Amino acid sequence: MVEFDLKDYLSRRKQVVEEALGKIFPSASGLEKRVIEAARYSLFAGGKRLRPILCLAAAEVAGGDLRRVLPAACALEMIHTYSLIHDDLPAMDNDDYRRGVLTNHKVFGEAVAILAGDALLTEAFEYLASCAGEGLSPAKVLEAIRIAVKASGYRGMIGGQVIDLECENQKVSLATVEYMHIHKTGALLSASLEIGAILGGGDDSLKRSMRTYGHHMGLAFQITDDLLDVEGDPTLMGKTPGSDAAKNKMTYPALLGVIQSKSAAKEHVDSSLEALSGFGEAAEPLRAIARYLLVRRG
Amino acid sequence: MVEFDLKDYLSRRKQVVEEALGKIFPSASGLEKRVIEAARYSLFAGGKRLRPILCLAAAEVAGGDLRRVLPAACALEMIHTYSLIHDDLPAMDNDDYRRGVLTNHKVFGEAVAILAGDALLTEAFEYLASCAGEGLSPAKVLEAIRIAVKASGYRGMIGGQVIDLECENQKVSLATVEYMHIHKTGALLSASLEIGAILGGGDDSLKRSMRTYGHHMGLAFQITDDLLDVEGDPTLMGKTPGSDAAKNKMTYPALLGVIQSKSAAKEHVDSSLEALSGFGEAAEPLRAIARYLLVRRG
Repeated sequence: MVEFDLKDYLSRRKQVVEEALGKIFPSASGLEKRVIEAARYSLFAGGKRLRPILCLAAAEVAGGDLRRVLPAACALEMIHTYSLIHDDLPAMDNDDYRRGVLTNHKVFGEAVAILAGDALLTEAFEYLASCAGEGLSPAKVLEAIRIAVKASGYRGMIGGQVIDLECENQKVSLATVEYMHIHKTGALLSASLEIGAILGGGDDSLKRSMRTYGHHMGLAFQITDDLLDVEGDPTLMGKTPGSDAAKNKMTYPALLGVIQSKSAAKEHVDSSLEALSGFGEAAEPLRAIARYLLVRRG
Repeated sequence: MVEFDLKDYLSRRKQVVEEALGKIFPSASGLEKRVIEAARYSLFAGGKRLRPILCLAAAEVAGGDLRRVLPAACALEMIHTYSLIHDDLPAMDNDDYRRGVLTNHKVFGEAVAILAGDALLTEAFEYLASCAGEGLSPAKVLEAIRIAVKASGYRGMIGGQVIDLECENQKVSLATVEYMHIHKTGALLSASLEIGAILGGGDDSLKRSMRTYGHHMGLAFQITDDLLDVEGDPTLMGKTPGSDAAKNKMTYPALLGVIQSKSAAKEHVDSSLEALSGFGEAAEPLRAIARYLLVRRG
């Protein structure tokens, strides 16, 4: 068996997603164009496109037509981008830089940054809804919308961000940190996979497998992200190592130590691979993504 | 014909809407409960519930089952409430009070206020999507979702708010002020009516009539709102007259004078009534709402 070329796969999928994202908000002409410029600025500020890539990869496992799922994949990146814009605001994490470039409010001002985030979140539902026009049943698209809402609203990402704010500069338990991550990051990752499975035509069993994969992959992603802050390569990371410690963030290495954090990441990667057993070659991209987390350098 | 009792109608409908809104965000238990408290605070800070009432009234004209449309009506109030929370933020209009009570960020802080707005916007799409479970076709619900997105995103409300910010303290033309209002307020009012028509089972002609009614009623609402700031009763308004002028806002009376503003309001009310001709008694609430704008005192 030829080894799966993850780097090539990710780069090709990223290009497909970015081409589709490029067509979003095309009508930047009137007095309202500043908010569109601001939204596009953050949408093209160098993301890995992990959520859309996971969504498409899950649709692939389901044997679906990727073209039809692409608008939903873009919607997930829009939701992710809106959350970054709002999280970076002075009232929230107050970050001036993200991925090596100025944050949205540093370029466009706070008011426009808030509205650009609002616009990305709002329009994400247009892109999700538009999948029905691509030959998918309206009922499945509504199911996808409700999963996106649950994962990004107060029962998911927003809930996680509130917990993060509430726990700032406080000693908290590993259980609380994990609960926070599952909501703040894990929920949307899992939802991306589940939505891909649904819109790709997968059955309930595939949806469940994708959720389980997403849960463990999401935690492995978070743990290895925390580990990178301790021992990562700054040229690959777009942020300075040690910044979590400097901000007094409750990370896995801070709570568990580096060695135990590494073995926890390994366990979650193993569990994520187990969820994919029986899906054959179509699940190879998802397996490669999970395995890669253990050797990532940035 | 017995005269239509608008006051009684509005008060009964408001009660129906508020009972339904009361059941939103019921699971305020975990660490994330602060954002839910914040969302509920603004959701129950004394709104007129105009958007849900218009949505239900349009569904009534279409002969629909109001119970089935109620979640969508609530979603429209959630979108309106989120927009008020974000507009009041220090980076935007920087308002400490709204309707006589402290604004969201004055009570909960800016970070939670931003997230509470985000949560209301996100969850609005759950409530819209949930209408399909009430016996309405998924395709119609998706149509309603796309109308809500268009009216509240950069092509509607958010676009209007950006224009408002861009034009602050500038001399602008009546055409620009009108364009701003049509986007900032009018779009969601019209969408509320159109969504009510769709989910109530109305045909394309009814949808168009509702849009036309909404367009003119929305402008009449804005003009009479501006007029109230010049000559309204402060005890009924929840804000101090003259506050627009003090903020240097470009209002209809400032641009047209009081007398011409009144005749413009009258013309728009007449046009809104014309759009309802032929709909008989079922449209009487909408007619009464439009007529009331010309005699409102708060």
